[in-house]
Amino acid sequence: VSDVASLLAGVVGPDNVLTEGAALADYGHDEALSVTPGQPAFVVKPGTTSEVAGVLRIASEYKLAVTARGSGTGLSGGTIPRPGGLVMSFARMNQILEIDTANHVAVVQPGVTLADLEAASAEHGLSYPVYPGEMSASLGGTIATNAGGMRAVKYGVTRRHVLGLEAVLASGEVLRTGGKPVKLSSGYDLTQLIIGSEGTLALVTEATLRLYPRLPAQAVLLAPFGSLTKVTTAVPRILASGVGPLMLEYMDARSMAMILQGENTDVGIPDSVRETTQAYLMVVHEERDSGRLDADVADLAELLADAGATDVYALPRAAGRRIIEARERAFWAVKRSGADDILDTVVPRAAMVTFLGEVEKIAARHQRMVIGTGHAGDGNVHLVVFEPDEVARGQLMREIVAAAKASGGAVSGEHGIGTAKVKHFLEQADPVALSLMRQVKKAFDPDGILNPGVLFG
Amino acid sequence: VSDVASLLAGVVGPDNVLTEGAALADYGHDEALSVTPGQPAFVVKPGTTSEVAGVLRIASEYKLAVTARGSGTGLSGGTIPRPGGLVMSFARMNQILEIDTANHVAVVQPGVTLADLEAASAEHGLSYPVYPGEMSASLGGTIATNAGGMRAVKYGVTRRHVLGLEAVLASGEVLRTGGKPVKLSSGYDLTQLIIGSEGTLALVTEATLRLYPRLPAQAVLLAPFGSLTKVTTAVPRILASGVGPLMLEYMDARSMAMILQGENTDVGIPDSVRETTQAYLMVVHEERDSGRLDADVADLAELLADAGATDVYALPRAAGRRIIEARERAFWAVKRSGADDILDTVVPRAAMVTFLGEVEKIAARHQRMVIGTGHAGDGNVHLVVFEPDEVARGQLMREIVAAAKASGGAVSGEHGIGTAKVKHFLEQADPVALSLMRQVKKAFDPDGILNPGVLFG
Repeated sequence: VSDVASLLAGVVGPDNVLTEGAALADYGHDEALSVTPGQPAFVVKPGTTSEVAGVLRIASEYKLAVTARGSGTGLSGGTIPRPGGLVMSFARMNQILEIDTANHVAVVQPGVTLADLEAASAEHGLSYPVYPGEMSASLGGTIATNAGGMRAVKYGVTRRHVLGLEAVLASGEVLRTGGKPVKLSSGYDLTQLIIGSEGTLALVTEATLRLYPRLPAQAVLLAPFGSLTKVTTAVPRILASGVGPLMLEYMDARSMAMILQGENTDVGIPDSVRETTQAYLMVVHEERDSGRLDADVADLAELLADAGATDVYALPRAAGRRIIEARERAFWAVKRSGADDILDTVVPRAAMVTFLGEVEKIAARHQRMVIGTGHAGDGNVHLVVFEPDEVARGQLMREIVAAAKASGGAVSGEHGIGTAKVKHFLEQADPVALSLMRQVKKAFDPDGILNPGVLFG
Repeated sequence: VSDVASLLAGVVGPDNVLTEGAALADYGHDEALSVTPGQPAFVVKPGTTSEVAGVLRIASEYKLAVTARGSGTGLSGGTIPRPGGLVMSFARMNQILEIDTANHVAVVQPGVTLADLEAASAEHGLSYPVYPGEMSASLGGTIATNAGGMRAVKYGVTRRHVLGLEAVLASGEVLRTGGKPVKLSSGYDLTQLIIGSEGTLALVTEATLRLYPRLPAQAVLLAPFGSLTKVTTAVPRILASGVGPLMLEYMDARSMAMILQGENTDVGIPDSVRETTQAYLMVVHEERDSGRLDADVADLAELLADAGATDVYALPRAAGRRIIEARERAFWAVKRSGADDILDTVVPRAAMVTFLGEVEKIAARHQRMVIGTGHAGDGNVHLVVFEPDEVARGQLMREIVAAAKASGGAVSGEHGIGTAKVKHFLEQADPVALSLMRQVKKAFDPDGILNPGVLFG
């Protein structure tokens, strides 16, 4: 260990290598509710791409497991290191290298947070639309998981916004993919291959990202429904209208209560309505000016009413912001409530009705509570599972994932597989696809030192 | 040959195997201007995925080069077979299997044309937005090249719209990727890897595609500019406005003359304006209703005038349609004019000014004509090269590609590399990326039977 430590110190400087003490434990976990933390032997904080390459060459030589770490806000254990392994923290590589206003592009280091990028973009009237509900997340982490979030229904997930990457392979070789052009047909798209690969193929050291014009006018509608079925049938109608809302979120009544209670937020829905509500749809819309916004909001309100909403509340600005923020912090409300695990299964959006019906049956069979919120416009269902027993919980979740698969869906829409969902992933994946993924992994990382255990178990 | 032919006939039926006669030559070319046709030994027309698999097993056993063919409208020689090889024609696999209106998804076989899919989608108020200017192109071919086209500035290229694939590997194994969900974070995205791989990794037998609401109101603006620089500075302003036009096309004066002459189209621009015009910008916009459309068109016209347009013409419906169609058929006008080759280099859109300036210098140095049109909103520049001498043309094009690369761009934005641009691609590609691409190719197709010569030379 001490030999390796001094080699690492030779690359990044002694101040940027941790090998002992309580601090190591800080690098042993993410926000996954059910994954056991793992203490690394080394935490290294490189400051440049060539330092990342130098560290990876040492790791390759000593066959050290390497886990990349941004802000540690992941929900699937994807940044939990192997015991005895090395954590590559990108905390020091946190510079926004360029905001290119003519091309609407940002060039960032992986340790930049979504909040920092959003603030820097806003100064130029631009926005990076990935909005997974945790603005302290790093760009590196969001690329590793192909993060989505509430604005994905309008702008699409991370995959859509990454134009190019610089990344370092396990061998220490530096790879450059894509660039500022918004389209390419020049060889295999390695940018897309690395996005969502959860740190198992290469470590991203720089990303070229698309920015979008920031639209100034925004409105929030909240519609309570007497049944979840009505909510899920309202969604395709709204999307078919061509209005193109920014967010389209559903929350079942129990989740809503939990979210609002935790945040002490009153959005002014009378008790009488609340009592008959099974689920809410939150529709956020943005436009270039308030005239267009008002016209669109009127159309949306009519669509919601036609689809059977009990009522439609156009929230005042402050209340609107509060409820978006409360939804953003739903995970923390859930955590405080003693939830045992979460899933972010995804299904074709029109299959949500059937899928959520199946989930209800599974929960009833297990006599356990499973509550949900989700990116309804994307069919991305976040389920919170209350079942303290690990074995029983595993079975319950297995049945939910199988139901998602049966509805034409998959294990994860945006959180990634990490280690938390490896079993489910391996069970549901197409065997031919899985075999190809293993071979791709081998081409990038022949010794398997990058995030072993993640994705492939 | 006759042994193999009877094996193939055993899989697809004798009527669906061609081994001799003039018909073979029809399968030996695409629309690339400068690639020598190549006569295949076998043309096979499978009707099902399992027939495709059966043919590939035979090809693997006999180490036959296999080239997939849709409509043969490609522009890079990507569907020109190896002499003695096998062409897998998807002409019979041309069924639209499903238009799923609730999910806004189409499931198609690879031989379906863009025109057929557009017609079927329109019946449900939906649209598949890929619009590369050749509606007889097959979906399989557009996926193989990651086709773009005029609507990509608003909707993005093919990559954005393919949600899932069924594809057959060289071994005959059938791979399934993705599905109807619009987002996934469940392992490497093999869908994205296959898109743009030009038939070198796997043969697509089914695709799940996103459809979008069809917006009913459309307007066409044509703005002549006294200089190309003004055009390319107008583009970022329009994109920054947030109006979000459907098309943003530039045509230099010579291209415009060629396009309009060929089509016998008069769009009513007075000679006096025409004479001082160096380039045109065509802006097409669509909206949900005519009120919004009119307001947007007024904003766009003001933006164009502010950016220095000599005038702004809002074309009447029929003239607007004619000019879009004429632009769509620009390739044929170019071909008739005796052009020797075309390029579809791509650069960051704000770099178009510099890049086109470099192209002008290169053309002047070679004393040859190079004219251009392009998807200005995407920085995708279509250049038509007039230089009959093959060696001199190769050098001229090499310099243009190097200039694109120097501007942060790449060889091809949407046509693909095929065999026509392999040299340029290999010269400009990142060596680490290229080495990984070769390894990925090996993982999918260990014997290298799928489209040998394409991409990697």
